[in-house]
Amino acid sequence: MDLELELKEKIAEIENVYSDKRIEASEYIDSLIKPPKSLGKLEKIAISLAGITGQVKNELKKKRIIVLCADNGVTCEGVSSAPVSVTASQAVNMTKGITGMSSMARHFGIETEIVDVGISTDYNCEQVLDRKIRKGTGNIAIEPALTREEVLRAILVGMECADRASMDKVDVLGVGEMGIGNTTTSAAVLAAISGAMAEDVVGRGGGLTDDAFQKKISVVEKALNRFLSSGSDKGDIINILYELGGLDIAAMCGVFLGAARNRIPVVIDGYISVVAALCACKLNEKASGYLFPSHESKEKGYRIAISMLDLKPWFNLDMGLGEGSGCVIAFQIMEAACAFVCNMATFEGGGICDDYLEDIRKQEK
Amino acid sequence: MDLELELKEKIAEIENVYSDKRIEASEYIDSLIKPPKSLGKLEKIAISLAGITGQVKNELKKKRIIVLCADNGVTCEGVSSAPVSVTASQAVNMTKGITGMSSMARHFGIETEIVDVGISTDYNCEQVLDRKIRKGTGNIAIEPALTREEVLRAILVGMECADRASMDKVDVLGVGEMGIGNTTTSAAVLAAISGAMAEDVVGRGGGLTDDAFQKKISVVEKALNRFLSSGSDKGDIINILYELGGLDIAAMCGVFLGAARNRIPVVIDGYISVVAALCACKLNEKASGYLFPSHESKEKGYRIAISMLDLKPWFNLDMGLGEGSGCVIAFQIMEAACAFVCNMATFEGGGICDDYLEDIRKQEK
Repeated sequence: MDLELELKEKIAEIENVYSDKRIEASEYIDSLIKPPKSLGKLEKIAISLAGITGQVKNELKKKRIIVLCADNGVTCEGVSSAPVSVTASQAVNMTKGITGMSSMARHFGIETEIVDVGISTDYNCEQVLDRKIRKGTGNIAIEPALTREEVLRAILVGMECADRASMDKVDVLGVGEMGIGNTTTSAAVLAAISGAMAEDVVGRGGGLTDDAFQKKISVVEKALNRFLSSGSDKGDIINILYELGGLDIAAMCGVFLGAARNRIPVVIDGYISVVAALCACKLNEKASGYLFPSHESKEKGYRIAISMLDLKPWFNLDMGLGEGSGCVIAFQIMEAACAFVCNMATFEGGGICDDYLEDIRKQEK
Repeated sequence: MDLELELKEKIAEIENVYSDKRIEASEYIDSLIKPPKSLGKLEKIAISLAGITGQVKNELKKKRIIVLCADNGVTCEGVSSAPVSVTASQAVNMTKGITGMSSMARHFGIETEIVDVGISTDYNCEQVLDRKIRKGTGNIAIEPALTREEVLRAILVGMECADRASMDKVDVLGVGEMGIGNTTTSAAVLAAISGAMAEDVVGRGGGLTDDAFQKKISVVEKALNRFLSSGSDKGDIINILYELGGLDIAAMCGVFLGAARNRIPVVIDGYISVVAALCACKLNEKASGYLFPSHESKEKGYRIAISMLDLKPWFNLDMGLGEGSGCVIAFQIMEAACAFVCNMATFEGGGICDDYLEDIRKQEK
């Protein structure tokens, strides 16, 4: 089938969350033995999950972080602190559970799926799922990163990952990445979508000197100017992704879309992840109902992107690792939200005296 | 033995954390395969734990939340949205794992110890540990809450709870409370310690109408004025606690001191918990090395107290439940910190090429 049509049809299949189940969950939570709304965002998380699954009480037994790995041609401009080969070696290390995210995921019994959508260095590891579309991308400072077809294929790879998660009965997904240079491409994509200046969306990535940081800003400016002076439709997300993006961002966007299509709650990690989530919601705004934030990334552009999604991060631990590391902790918060709904007593059952029940009900009105 | 002397001696036994082990942990973490400092506060948590336990690699297998329960005479002024009987019924419900905190703790395999240090309503439940000092306290608006001796005994009860945790080989403690009216007493204690105005430390507790909120501020002002015009030594924490505090706050203060004395990491929950931690550090500033924050409470005075401890909360989920509910999620964050230190590869072992290693090391200098 024509790729454009295939993607369009799949994206159109995303449904709204169940608003009636949200109301039912909210009413149930108000009947639990606690001051009204005193569990704050945990209550909102539980309500959101009900809207997604159609059940008031949920369990997040099977959790998976999908990590999309790819290289970015823009690294030849000197915008990264690490050499390109790190993408491949860390993808392999993630399958062993010895990187930052994967070491924590292993502890909590969270599955990881490491997917190669465009690693440029050769490696030998069967545990990395081979969905390589091409070895790295073009240098966005001087040329488009990808062709339009390559972007479509990358998004479909991400959607395939979500389909597999659905078949495997995964209860919640996280979306991470590994790709040296991808804070630069994410900044360019976000600037193109939001209209922000390069200096407002460029951060220090894995750790840059002042000179390299200035260089990174000028590279993003150059890429943006090239895009803005091209004949490309500036409002088309697929165009923005092939001109300025990367295979990792495109595939991550696909996971967010696929999760929504399969009614699986999906957690945003840091900067690259939030930019990919924003692309997904621009392709179908209904996808936003399935998204959960995690941590506030150190990268400067994160705040712009997360507020465009009308979300607020749950925690700030000054993390800037990527890989999906924020999802590990977010999953625990979501599990806590499920636990109180499943295990708490209601006022009727909890032996709380009638006076209190009356008082609480008065306040609710 | 004389209670004053017994407490003084025990508090003096608190030792500083091991600064050499902190340095060793910090150096080890910098050798792991990630950009330097990219795990942010998770790295700081791991370093703090090393300073407490004396080991670089730690596991938090046995986790316990101690909940100190007591009633407060000031409730007769109408400062609370819930009736006094709720303290007893929720203490009992916590032993069943059906309240907000206990339902989540049960899910994560966290132990709870529910301790009655001053519940005024009669109840029948052997699972609540009976350490009742008296049934409720005096109304701080018109009289001291307690005698000096009662405060000393309550602190020693808290220290005994920490001793038991040490004997049970608990790896990390959390400190929660149940006591209708205790946001009022906490506000009064914090105002006395910090010099803040009543209006800066009084919040809406479990949910108050505007009228009741104004009433609560004026009650705290009245209590403060009574204390300030008394002959009491204004700098003595024990005096502040018997004039303005409660049995829950005093016993919680004891748990914080006892945890430090037993070198057990201990997590602060919300407003009452942070005020108790502040009291502990005023009694021996070395206790601060054993403290970990959790969430940013909705209660107004929380920020004043946590910043006096030179700590910043890790997450904000708009929670205002108490019971130790924030500790549940904080424990997960601390476990994540332990997991990366235990499971991650070092640069030497992770197959990361030498160039990257060189680059990283250059940046560190």
